[in-house]
Amino acid sequence: MENERLEKQMDFLLEIDKEKNILRQTHLSGHGRRENDAEHAWHMAIMAYLLREYADRPFDVAKTMMMCLIHDIVEIDAGDTYAYDTEGKKTQKEREEKAADRIFGLLPEDQGKELRAIFEEFDEGDTPEARFARVCDNFQPLMLNNSNGGGDWVEHGVSRTQVEGRQGRTREGSKTIYEKTEEILNQNVEKGSLKP
Amino acid sequence: MENERLEKQMDFLLEIDKEKNILRQTHLSGHGRRENDAEHAWHMAIMAYLLREYADRPFDVAKTMMMCLIHDIVEIDAGDTYAYDTEGKKTQKEREEKAADRIFGLLPEDQGKELRAIFEEFDEGDTPEARFARVCDNFQPLMLNNSNGGGDWVEHGVSRTQVEGRQGRTREGSKTIYEKTEEILNQNVEKGSLKP
Repeated sequence: MENERLEKQMDFLLEIDKEKNILRQTHLSGHGRRENDAEHAWHMAIMAYLLREYADRPFDVAKTMMMCLIHDIVEIDAGDTYAYDTEGKKTQKEREEKAADRIFGLLPEDQGKELRAIFEEFDEGDTPEARFARVCDNFQPLMLNNSNGGGDWVEHGVSRTQVEGRQGRTREGSKTIYEKTEEILNQNVEKGSLKP
Repeated sequence: MENERLEKQMDFLLEIDKEKNILRQTHLSGHGRRENDAEHAWHMAIMAYLLREYADRPFDVAKTMMMCLIHDIVEIDAGDTYAYDTEGKKTQKEREEKAADRIFGLLPEDQGKELRAIFEEFDEGDTPEARFARVCDNFQPLMLNNSNGGGDWVEHGVSRTQVEGRQGRTREGSKTIYEKTEEILNQNVEKGSLKP
């Protein structure tokens, strides 16, 4: 009764369980503990579905949800690189490529290729799917951090210019969500939780 | 610049952040801590996408992923009811209905209705989407628990008959995954981690 294909899929599914132990810098709402990658991805995928009306271009919802769900899987080996960690950013690409080889390599070949392609599409950020997934990747921690009075920015002494560099990409996927982002950033500069 | 619709969607998205604090009885692989609802849902949605070839009937993948992602949201108010908690099961339906009214009621009316319908479809379990989502809802903790030597069953003194009652529904969605389920249950009875 061996089903080799299903066994490989289960090996992958069990391996990615480890993503629940990768902590991010963002804290949960209600001044909670640090969020992990799986929680972040869950939240992003729901966001992609619920806010899809604000995407500037039509996109494939199922593919984008899957993109959201798996975009951080490489961090199981490569670790989380904080958005404003300049040193870590230098080696991030190389570390993540190696991790992608190993982790997606657990799947049957066709699915390994499919997921690897979805992961790389996100990384390149050029398609409507990748652009909207990145909107969610930016907006989800922004929303949580804002609900906590911008505490994550205060902790890391982040400036508006730094945030702009990252959140600016939201503009490529959704004009409406970018406007809301700007509004939230302005409020946090006013409150003093984000350096001007 | 008020966008009332987006504000409502954000209220909902922030509210469901609380799901990350609802603990289940299942433990993470590697004899880890207890899993929370958001992590479970994340894992299930990836499973729905990756194992879709084993569904006995074709289904809408995006809808089923969304079903997986939100099916436990009512537990923010109603709490997690363990699959083999007979007392808790008696009031579960009523507690969850009330929670659904409040939580889906945060959304703009059209989306509140849409998500409520998806939630109820899962609950009723009759459509191909609901059947496959339930396959994932059963198979995900089974896989984790099995990787930990069946520790969650040992802890609760669960018998194979009890597990069958729940896992039996997997048969309605996927013959292949049901066969794998049977295989895993047999192994655990043999090992003594599941009462015969």
